[in-house]
Order: sequence, then structure tokens, then C-alpha cells
Amino acid sequence: MNASDKYNARVEAVDSLLCVGLDSDIGKLPAAYRKDDAPQLAFNRHIIDATAECAAAFKFNMAFYEANGAAGWRQLAQSVAYLRQRHPDILIISDAKRADIGNTSSAYACAIFDQLGFDAVTLNPYLGRDALQPFLDYADKACIILCRTSNPGSAEFQNLQVNSKPLWQLVAEKTATEWSANGNCMLVASGTNPAKMAQIRNIVGDMTLLVPGIGAQGGDLKAVVEAGLNSAGRGLIINSSRGIIFADDPAGAASGMRRAINAHR
Amino acid sequence: MNASDKYNARVEAVDSLLCVGLDSDIGKLPAAYRKDDAPQLAFNRHIIDATAECAAAFKFNMAFYEANGAAGWRQLAQSVAYLRQRHPDILIISDAKRADIGNTSSAYACAIFDQLGFDAVTLNPYLGRDALQPFLDYADKACIILCRTSNPGSAEFQNLQVNSKPLWQLVAEKTATEWSANGNCMLVASGTNPAKMAQIRNIVGDMTLLVPGIGAQGGDLKAVVEAGLNSAGRGLIINSSRGIIFADDPAGAASGMRRAINAHR
Repeated sequence: MNASDKYNARVEAVDSLLCVGLDSDIGKLPAAYRKDDAPQLAFNRHIIDATAECAAAFKFNMAFYEANGAAGWRQLAQSVAYLRQRHPDILIISDAKRADIGNTSSAYACAIFDQLGFDAVTLNPYLGRDALQPFLDYADKACIILCRTSNPGSAEFQNLQVNSKPLWQLVAEKTATEWSANGNCMLVASGTNPAKMAQIRNIVGDMTLLVPGIGAQGGDLKAVVEAGLNSAGRGLIINSSRGIIFADDPAGAASGMRRAINAHR
Repeated sequence: MNASDKYNARVEAVDSLLCVGLDSDIGKLPAAYRKDDAPQLAFNRHIIDATAECAAAFKFNMAFYEANGAAGWRQLAQSVAYLRQRHPDILIISDAKRADIGNTSSAYACAIFDQLGFDAVTLNPYLGRDALQPFLDYADKACIILCRTSNPGSAEFQNLQVNSKPLWQLVAEKTATEWSANGNCMLVASGTNPAKMAQIRNIVGDMTLLVPGIGAQGGDLKAVVEAGLNSAGRGLIINSSRGIIFADDPAGAASGMRRAINAHR
């Protein structure tokens, strides 16, 4: 089963488009976890156990593990393994934003897909297709290309006009028509602008979109869901990180978010 | 001392513009090292000892350590520490090609600058300035922005015309006029096209350029050096990875490369 089918099956099984973002910044963990020998793993197990029943995907933000060195990398691997063992049907995303020349991208793909066992990875298009190819060649994994990101300055490059089109539109078109030959591409489509979400949906057909920027980054959930759903009423991976994992009641926050999303489906 | 001054001092001390790229792919190490408990560290110590006297910089390609998991990350940290202790005046570059939204870029900067102790990092401009800012704020570290990369498909995005200019030119201009407020930016400028190297030099003044694509990727050394030198006869960090570290005689290869570069200065 490829990553897209895996995601869709989980969406149906738990009636959810929610992705829980494990941005487990060690400095922000509750004090009880910071005393643990493996604080990020202990915290992640807690969040996974509390929220998995509402989650169609989990996303690990690589930076917060790298900032904890080799111990962080080990806890990342252990967290992925824990999640996979408990919930083999959940899509597990590495938010890594990688891309490099060929042999280097091959090594990143090995790290993320083979060694850590992720189902999907976020990738940066600036180096062009050949830098993405080593990832694209994993036909059963998902390659989630950065199209429109949710940071305040995303327009600086992504909205530049190329032949009367913004650069992000070109990324969406190339992904849909060229890069997804294996049917394994998705796009990062910011939840901060519903009109542009609708344009992206129009370009990519039923392709799945990873949506950051809901919650802490302020996107409008109703408008984004209505603009982004595909013809099957799915096609969105709606991420929430800090709003769930650092909530007083993560299970309640995840459940509330699933419900809020479904209210607009 | 900021990273640029550190690099320039080392260039003068060893009369070299050479950067040795520690792309220490565990599967490509000589058999003798693969038996070691810490093969990448053992190999890197050997290469550092053999080549440091000819090197103004070393560049660690993060992918090849990540592909070895937590053990790889530990050996990366140990290799950087070994190099820094033996040769505190050599510029140490993390080739990571990172960039993400603000709090995530902060975590990457913490990993690379604070935890691992690198002097410089390569960064991807696609997300815009605010994604780079957490790195730029380390005034004594160098931020090396991807402008023209050396992969075969680099033109796909980097040569797109924006207001009658290629995108890579816009990156060079923004870096020179906006992003380097702390004087701590450099650019990745592929060694595969001397004419474009000359254009970049013309845009950025005396800014230091990291030059990949010489050697295994086929750039023309003489033309690139002549086009790229700054007004002080420096301003280039010329990287060679596989051509040195996997040579039968790495010391001889590094010495030969230094000599070949200097023949054109």
C-alpha cells in the first residue's frame, strides 16, 4: 500500500484529517518529563497514547530532535518505532525540508525512509527535480513538496511572478504534472490563505495537501477546509502542533480539533 | 572574530582556498575503517590529520551522518570536536541546507551552532528571510545561502526569470543588500559555470563564496578561480569531497588541489 492509500484508510478508520505535530522542544516539555532520562521519548509516548485515536497522521519536526544531539536522534527513532508498533496504520511524517545534490539526497532518503522508517518527508524544491529524485524513487513513500509555507515571510520568494504566475503555482504544477510520476507526491499548502488553497486544489486534482499554519499560526479552519477538500471529501492533512501537545489536556485538544475540522467537511 | 575573518586568517596562514568535504558515506569507507566501532570518526580523524595542513576549511555533509542514525550524529559531533581541538583556526561548515519557520529554524541553529559548534551552515532561501533570521542573528557565524547549486537540474528553478533576472541573481542581490546586515552571509556559487560565477562576484562585492562542483562534478578550476576571486585575491572556499577523501593518498590529493588552485590566483 502506498502512503496516500495508507493515509486515506486511516482517515476513514478514525474519521479524522488531523495530524498531531510532535514539535517536542525539550525546553518546553512539562517539568515532569524533563527529569526523565529520555524526556522527548517519554513525552511523545504520552502524547501518542493520548491523541492517537483522533489522529490520521503524526508529524515529527526534525529540528527539535537534532537540537538535542545524538540523544535526540535516538529518541526520535524510538518514538517513531513506538508509534509504528502501536499504530501501524497511522501515516508518520518527517518534517525535514530536505533537498541536496543526488548522492546527498540519497543519503537523506536512506536516513528518513530506511533507517527511521518514516512514511513521508517534506522536501524543498529550490534545487530542482534531480535533487528530489532519490526520494521520489521510493514509490510507496510520500514526498511532500514545499509549495506555500505558513511563515510570515513566505511571499518573499513564493509569490515572485514567473511568466505571470507566482512561483508557488509553478511548484504546484510541476509536482502535479512531472514529479508525481509514481503518484507519491503531496504538497505543503499553508492554512493561512483559503483563496490560494482553492487555487492549489484546482491545480493538483485530488492530491493530498499537508496544511500547516492552523492554530498557533492563525489560519481560518472553516475557510481552509472548505477550500481544500478534494472530490472524496478528504485530501487534507491538517497539522496542529503546539496547540495540542502543550495543551493542559492533549487528548481533549486533539478530539476538539478533529471535531472542529469535521464540522466543516 | 567573525567567521569571515577566521576564514581569511586561515587562508593566509596556510596559503590555501581549499575546503575538504567530509562526505564520509559509511558504505564507501575503506574496509579497514568499516570494522571500527566508530568508523566515521576514525576515518575523519585520519582525513583531518592527513589534509589539515592544506585546508582552510572543512565541510561536513550532514546527510552522511544522519544516514547512520544516532551513532552517526555522535560521530559527527566527535569529529567536529576533534577538528576544533586540533585546529581551532580552521573554518568548520555544516552542509545542511536548512530553513524552516521561525521557531523551527531556531532549533536547527541551536543544533548546528550551539550543540555541534559549527562556524557556518548552508541555508535554503525558498522560505524567505524570516526563516533565515534565527541563523543570521548569530553574528559571529556564517550563513551560506544557496544561490547557484551544482546539481545537473539546478537551472530548473534557479534560472527562472523574475523581472528579467534569473532567480539566483535575486538571491545574490537580497543576500548582499538585505540579509547580510551582520556582515555574516556567504553564498553557494556553483563551480560549474565561470561566467555566472563572474556575475555573482560582480553583485556581491568581496563576499566569500562557497564553491561546490569542482572535481567529481566537473567544474573548470582555472576559469572558476579567475572569475571568482575577490579584490583581496581570496573570497572563495573551494570544496573537494570525494576527490580527496576517497583518494588513495588523501594528503597528496589535498596538497595537489591547493597547488592547482594557487596556480590560478
